[in-house]
Amino acid sequence: MSLPMRKGSKTIGLPPGSLIHIGRKTSETIGLQVIDYTKETVQEKNLDRIDECFPFKDTDSVTWINIEGIHDPSIIQAIGTHFNIHPLVLEDIMNTSQRPKMEIFDDYIYLVFKMLYQQKKEKQIESEQVSILLMKHVVISFQERHGDIFDPIRERIRSGTGRIRKMGTDYLAYSLFDAVVDHYFNILENIGESIEAVEDELLDNPKPETLQRIHSFKSDMIFLRKSVWPLREVVSSLLRGESPLITKATGIFLRDVYDHTIQVIDTVETFRDMISGMFDIYMSSVSNKMNEVMKVLTIFAAIFIPLTFVAGIYGMNFDADISPFNMPELTWYLGYPFALFIMLSISVTMIWFFKRKKWL
Amino acid sequence: MSLPMRKGSKTIGLPPGSLIHIGRKTSETIGLQVIDYTKETVQEKNLDRIDECFPFKDTDSVTWINIEGIHDPSIIQAIGTHFNIHPLVLEDIMNTSQRPKMEIFDDYIYLVFKMLYQQKKEKQIESEQVSILLMKHVVISFQERHGDIFDPIRERIRSGTGRIRKMGTDYLAYSLFDAVVDHYFNILENIGESIEAVEDELLDNPKPETLQRIHSFKSDMIFLRKSVWPLREVVSSLLRGESPLITKATGIFLRDVYDHTIQVIDTVETFRDMISGMFDIYMSSVSNKMNEVMKVLTIFAAIFIPLTFVAGIYGMNFDADISPFNMPELTWYLGYPFALFIMLSISVTMIWFFKRKKWL
Amino acid sequence: MSLPMRKGSKTIGLPPGSLIHIGRKTSETIGLQVIDYTKETVQEKNLDRIDECFPFKDTDSVTWINIEGIHDPSIIQAIGTHFNIHPLVLEDIMNTSQRPKMEIFDDYIYLVFKMLYQQKKEKQIESEQVSILLMKHVVISFQERHGDIFDPIRERIRSGTGRIRKMGTDYLAYSLFDAVVDHYFNILENIGESIEAVEDELLDNPKPETLQRIHSFKSDMIFLRKSVWPLREVVSSLLRGESPLITKATGIFLRDVYDHTIQVIDTVETFRDMISGMFDIYMSSVSNKMNEVMKVLTIFAAIFIPLTFVAGIYGMNFDADISPFNMPELTWYLGYPFALFIMLSISVTMIWFFKRKKWL
Amino acid sequence: MSLPMRKGSKTIGLPPGSLIHIGRKTSETIGLQVIDYTKETVQEKNLDRIDECFPFKDTDSVTWINIEGIHDPSIIQAIGTHFNIHPLVLEDIMNTSQRPKMEIFDDYIYLVFKMLYQQKKEKQIESEQVSILLMKHVVISFQERHGDIFDPIRERIRSGTGRIRKMGTDYLAYSLFDAVVDHYFNILENIGESIEAVEDELLDNPKPETLQRIHSFKSDMIFLRKSVWPLREVVSSLLRGESPLITKATGIFLRDVYDHTIQVIDTVETFRDMISGMFDIYMSSVSNKMNEVMKVLTIFAAIFIPLTFVAGIYGMNFDADISPFNMPELTWYLGYPFALFIMLSISVTMIWFFKRKKWL
Amino acid sequence: MSLPMRKGSKTIGLPPGSLIHIGRKTSETIGLQVIDYTKETVQEKNLDRIDECFPFKDTDSVTWINIEGIHDPSIIQAIGTHFNIHPLVLEDIMNTSQRPKMEIFDDYIYLVFKMLYQQKKEKQIESEQVSILLMKHVVISFQERHGDIFDPIRERIRSGTGRIRKMGTDYLAYSLFDAVVDHYFNILENIGESIEAVEDELLDNPKPETLQRIHSFKSDMIFLRKSVWPLREVVSSLLRGESPLITKATGIFLRDVYDHTIQVIDTVETFRDMISGMFDIYMSSVSNKMNEVMKVLTIFAAIFIPLTFVAGIYGMNFDADISPFNMPELTWYLGYPFALFIMLSISVTMIWFFKRKKWL
Repeated sequence: MSLPMRKGSKTIGLPPGSLIHIGRKTSETIGLQVIDYTKETVQEKNLDRIDECFPFKDTDSVTWINIEGIHDPSIIQAIGTHFNIHPLVLEDIMNTSQRPKMEIFDDYIYLVFKMLYQQKKEKQIESEQVSILLMKHVVISFQERHGDIFDPIRERIRSGTGRIRKMGTDYLAYSLFDAVVDHYFNILENIGESIEAVEDELLDNPKPETLQRIHSFKSDMIFLRKSVWPLREVVSSLLRGESPLITKATGIFLRDVYDHTIQVIDTVETFRDMISGMFDIYMSSVSNKMNEVMKVLTIFAAIFIPLTFVAGIYGMNFDADISPFNMPELTWYLGYPFALFIMLSISVTMIWFFKRKKWL
Repeated sequence: MSLPMRKGSKTIGLPPGSLIHIGRKTSETIGLQVIDYTKETVQEKNLDRIDECFPFKDTDSVTWINIEGIHDPSIIQAIGTHFNIHPLVLEDIMNTSQRPKMEIFDDYIYLVFKMLYQQKKEKQIESEQVSILLMKHVVISFQERHGDIFDPIRERIRSGTGRIRKMGTDYLAYSLFDAVVDHYFNILENIGESIEAVEDELLDNPKPETLQRIHSFKSDMIFLRKSVWPLREVVSSLLRGESPLITKATGIFLRDVYDHTIQVIDTVETFRDMISGMFDIYMSSVSNKMNEVMKVLTIFAAIFIPLTFVAGIYGMNFDADISPFNMPELTWYLGYPFALFIMLSISVTMIWFFKRKKWL
Repeated sequence: MSLPMRKGSKTIGLPPGSLIHIGRKTSETIGLQVIDYTKETVQEKNLDRIDECFPFKDTDSVTWINIEGIHDPSIIQAIGTHFNIHPLVLEDIMNTSQRPKMEIFDDYIYLVFKMLYQQKKEKQIESEQVSILLMKHVVISFQERHGDIFDPIRERIRSGTGRIRKMGTDYLAYSLFDAVVDHYFNILENIGESIEAVEDELLDNPKPETLQRIHSFKSDMIFLRKSVWPLREVVSSLLRGESPLITKATGIFLRDVYDHTIQVIDTVETFRDMISGMFDIYMSSVSNKMNEVMKVLTIFAAIFIPLTFVAGIYGMNFDADISPFNMPELTWYLGYPFALFIMLSISVTMIWFFKRKKWL
Repeated sequence: MSLPMRKGSKTIGLPPGSLIHIGRKTSETIGLQVIDYTKETVQEKNLDRIDECFPFKDTDSVTWINIEGIHDPSIIQAIGTHFNIHPLVLEDIMNTSQRPKMEIFDDYIYLVFKMLYQQKKEKQIESEQVSILLMKHVVISFQERHGDIFDPIRERIRSGTGRIRKMGTDYLAYSLFDAVVDHYFNILENIGESIEAVEDELLDNPKPETLQRIHSFKSDMIFLRKSVWPLREVVSSLLRGESPLITKATGIFLRDVYDHTIQVIDTVETFRDMISGMFDIYMSSVSNKMNEVMKVLTIFAAIFIPLTFVAGIYGMNFDADISPFNMPELTWYLGYPFALFIMLSISVTMIWFFKRKKWL
Repeated sequence: MSLPMRKGSKTIGLPPGSLIHIGRKTSETIGLQVIDYTKETVQEKNLDRIDECFPFKDTDSVTWINIEGIHDPSIIQAIGTHFNIHPLVLEDIMNTSQRPKMEIFDDYIYLVFKMLYQQKKEKQIESEQVSILLMKHVVISFQERHGDIFDPIRERIRSGTGRIRKMGTDYLAYSLFDAVVDHYFNILENIGESIEAVEDELLDNPKPETLQRIHSFKSDMIFLRKSVWPLREVVSSLLRGESPLITKATGIFLRDVYDHTIQVIDTVETFRDMISGMFDIYMSSVSNKMNEVMKVLTIFAAIFIPLTFVAGIYGMNFDADISPFNMPELTWYLGYPFALFIMLSISVTMIWFFKRKKWL
């Protein structure tokens, strides 16, 4: 699950607003795409240089600039200068240890949150930071690397399905956010299935590995909580309508994504409850099993203890010749069978006793 | 108890407002009933096609349209178009993984919550989603399948008992909601009885199955909490009177249903407390029982250990002929009885010692 | 402690406001008393029929109607009709599974809460529902059965001590409420003493019964919390002065009863903390005791194990005649004392070792 | 630590405002002192009768009446009558089971809180109730018994150091309150040192007494919390400036005492956290120690078990004369050394095995 | 981690505002530096006497007075007198047991918080109190001893990088605060790495020292929480803009530091969650390991018990000459091999049984 987010020590001592990339090292080239659309037209372009997108700034059409890769300060700086973004925001875009948050400025809204994905079920949950700058006519989205999560939105823009082409930048930003939140459900379904699998294992055959899986679920939940809880605050501030950039029509959709956020949080909390119960069950399952073993063995020993004692008795060397009181059994005609019979009786009695006590 | 609710992965990537049924697969035909009433008249009809109910929209009478089955997008879409319902609401109606909520629109209120039922006591709690659209003259209710929970309300409308015929759509919606909440008490009574039964079992004879039942109570409570807690918020927003669709006269009844909701929540929380205590009791009961067994067996062993040692002594082969110091007891006239007497003394002393120490 | 309160299943499906008695079955006759007083006069009467009290409604004197027994719908209905009480309130009066609450109507305030009593110390806590209707000139109180908790108030009215005769119905209602809250302290004192007794037992001699008593304290606290917590909200809403029926002079007394309520809640919470600590102490006490037993027995066994081994050695049948290496000790003059000496040395060494290790 | 506070059962049934002393029985005589001061003058007097202080009421100087002993209703009543104090306040002054609180009346403020002291370190924490009546020109303080906690304040008044002589009654009341809160730090330091001592003991040599001390810390914390938490609310209501009796200049000092209160609460909460961790450490320490003992003993036994078995083998009585297969070892020239060698090998192997497994 | 902060007992009984140093004893000389700057000029000076800095008070340039060492009341008093600071603030500056807080006065803001540092990784976290007085043209910072944490800020002022020279005293105060908060991330990274190391150790090879480290992490977290939580409130009050000393331009930077504070708190809480999980894992790891040992040993013993019994049987001294029933095996030609074979079969059977039961 990796360590909790932290501000890299690299920036300590630097003046605030210094552009330093903090996050996974990468040497991928940075992808730049622009989609510009109105109700009637769509125009799509892959850019080589960031300044190719600047002309879109002043048109009335909706322009979506998607940037895949945030490790090049010159690009971020160019955007910052051209679109007049506060240096602290630029610093935050490049620093992948942000807590999800929203900040309203006069001309734009800055949104940052975590996208989660798993390469495969049962695999580690990975997170990628997504930043969105929402302006009157432009939306700029920043991802850490190439990804396909926004493809369905591109498709909808191209084909004109849904209402995306008819609405403004706020609806586009909502769609991006919604796509990310929708993705959380995938992760939760995977985790949910894993939890169910472990739960079955727990009652059947708890193993130390089970404990490790429970422990790793716990860490996953700690991680998810950190990514998900602040989202609620983010969406509800958007909903409070403090910025004119959010139109009323989009508000209804934000209410929907708010519901989804709550549902995600709810599910995370439910999983937490379930997992914390699992630890108790594990402990009691293991100790039950252990107790069972110890009980059987102890009872087993207890049965043999008096038998060995009887054998010990008749192994004593008292001289039967000296007196009739000295171990007369040794000289009985059926002495040995008698001794074996005594042993048998003892063991039968004990087994009966243990059964009656329900210890067996 | 099944997994916590989730948005099915089917809708990921689709534009918001897409009508896709998420929930139990079913091929039941969809039931459509209309009851239209005023203070004086009642008219009841089973419909074959949804558009037969549209004429009722514009009358002043109260019209209740009950739809059993939400897996046909065409019906939902028809209602949406005719009654001018927001596409996101239609999407929510068809998606059974909703969290209970209420949304106020200009012309209607959308209510969604869970109906709970158990086929039999001790059986799994099942849940069904109920959606209600409350408009000025029409109430539309959506259930997942055919059910009889609203029969008493139908009966009251037909016979005109109570005040239902004298009041508007808000009172009808309240009655539907109240019927569902009332049903929760049934579930809680059943669970309460099961908990009491398990509690008795716990002190008498705790078994691994007891633990499993406690564990399943816990899951039930997690599930119930998720269904019940949001209800409180739902009713209290209705009470805050933000919509003109709720009249003051109905407000008093909502206050009553609010009290019931609180009572349900209270009971769920009480059950949670009781159940969490039960786990501790179980653990200590099991360990007490185990300790008892181990103690008895250990004491039993402890008594035989010195006896076997004594027998071992007199089983040694020192040659009594060589010197008078070599095991003279072996040649005593009462040597054997003497040895047995020593053994007896030892065991009596030990038993007395254990009794005095209160270990026995 | 009985199950948590619930709405009886009897009312499910009935229209709201149906008068059905839910609670302990009883066939006691219903007691009806009226006390009517002004600063100067007192008039007291036992009634046979409820309508005998109706004439008092329109006088300016303070009239207290006390009704002992709520299982007769006709009486409740008569009061409802005559004093113009909302049907839902009447339903609540007859249903003893209410959560403490207060409801303000235009002409009256409805208060419902729990009276607690114990037949004897260490006995089960029982609860009885008390409802109060506070009107401008009349207070009607409903108890489940005959009781003497309000006797001191009656006495004060008769004798004119205190300020009760000088004040209005709100002060009378306050006095009734205060009498019930005062009674809680009795219960808490009893429980406090029991807790102290169990605490002593816990450290001296923990027994399985101790655990059961701790468990039953826990249930008591769950029950008390449910009865007491809502009271706080009840009194504080009264204090917020939302109804003209509460005069400012009585407000100061309500503040006093509010303090008492907080004190009761505080004490319940303190008890909860103490009890939860007790469970831990019990567990560690029991396990300490068990460990002590096991340790002593294991050490006891450990001492005999090498002794028995030595005896086993000299019980071997090697033929000393064949070679001087075959068990020469058997033929020594002091062979037996030598063997016993070895055993003694071993046991002394081990005891010394265990003492040094502080295991004994 | 004594039981949590409670309203004595003595007052149950009495009209509110009845003056009954509830608290430690005492027959000490009641101390009455008056200090009257202005910027320029100080006048100090021990009174014999309470009415000697009444003349100070109407002067413009600040008058501090300190009353040590609250068990005489006649004195309390006299003050109540003369200074026009509400009967419920008088009742609260005499009842030492108050929860700390503040009540604002038109002409005066009533403050009640707990003073804590320890006779010696490690001794029980005792508490005494202090009530303060703050009026325009008079402050009346009530203590349960003679004490020296206010001596430094008296000294400051006499000598005129600090700003106490220059300010009004509100500053005097603040000083009294501050003196009591300051005293809490003493208690906390003592407890802090005890906790550190126990913490060391915990890791070195946990004993059952350690557990009892942890348990008693826990009770202390429950008690302290009850005394300290409400203080926060008391001071913050004073700060909210709802009464004209509190001047702005004194407000700054109240902010200071508020900070102290928060610090006390913080420390109590920190101690709670530390103590709850200690219990876990204790349990695991004890179980570690026990496990160590059991492991060593079990390994010890395990080594001797096969040895005793070997000795048992050669103690069998098979007749070596009958066949060469019947225990030929018994007749070997080096049979006995051979048997001893086998035993030695077994034990060496086992010890090596246990060492390799890190069990030893 | 040292004891939680407390007000030293030295000040008890003194009038509020008494200047007494509470904290680490030190005899270091006190360092006094002044940096005075405008957009264009910088002037830097080490002072010998505090009054050398007073002339800067009335200039329009930004003056930063940094004082290293707070144990000399005369210096603090001189500053207090000259800059007109409230005596309670001066008392707080000298008392290192403050809780982080902010106080707004008419002419200045007083900020106090904790700077944390570690000499080396894995070393104890130490804390130092930093006080800041923010005035219109002057910022005075107080540290407990010489330190280099503010060096980067000095460097930025000297070189004029960033916007520090262009902005006022509020930005300078923000920079100081930000430097301290930035430093927290260092501490958290160190702790994070230690926690990961312990987590690995936990699953591989839990030792009693592991428990002690977990325990010490716990104390660290208790300590960090106390230092960090109040910061949130401090910054958010600054943000609420209640003082004209904070300009809007600086507000955006405060929002940034607020985010950092939240991130620090989040990380501390995450660590707490992780650590509390670790304790459970430790306990179950240790008990698993112990159980493994005990199980192996018990099974080992269980196998030998019947073998020893068989040996005991054939060690009995029944006289085979007397009857053919008395231990005929002893006189069989293959009696001894037969006995050994029986023993072998028993042990093989038992091992097979234990394997099948999965106990081995």
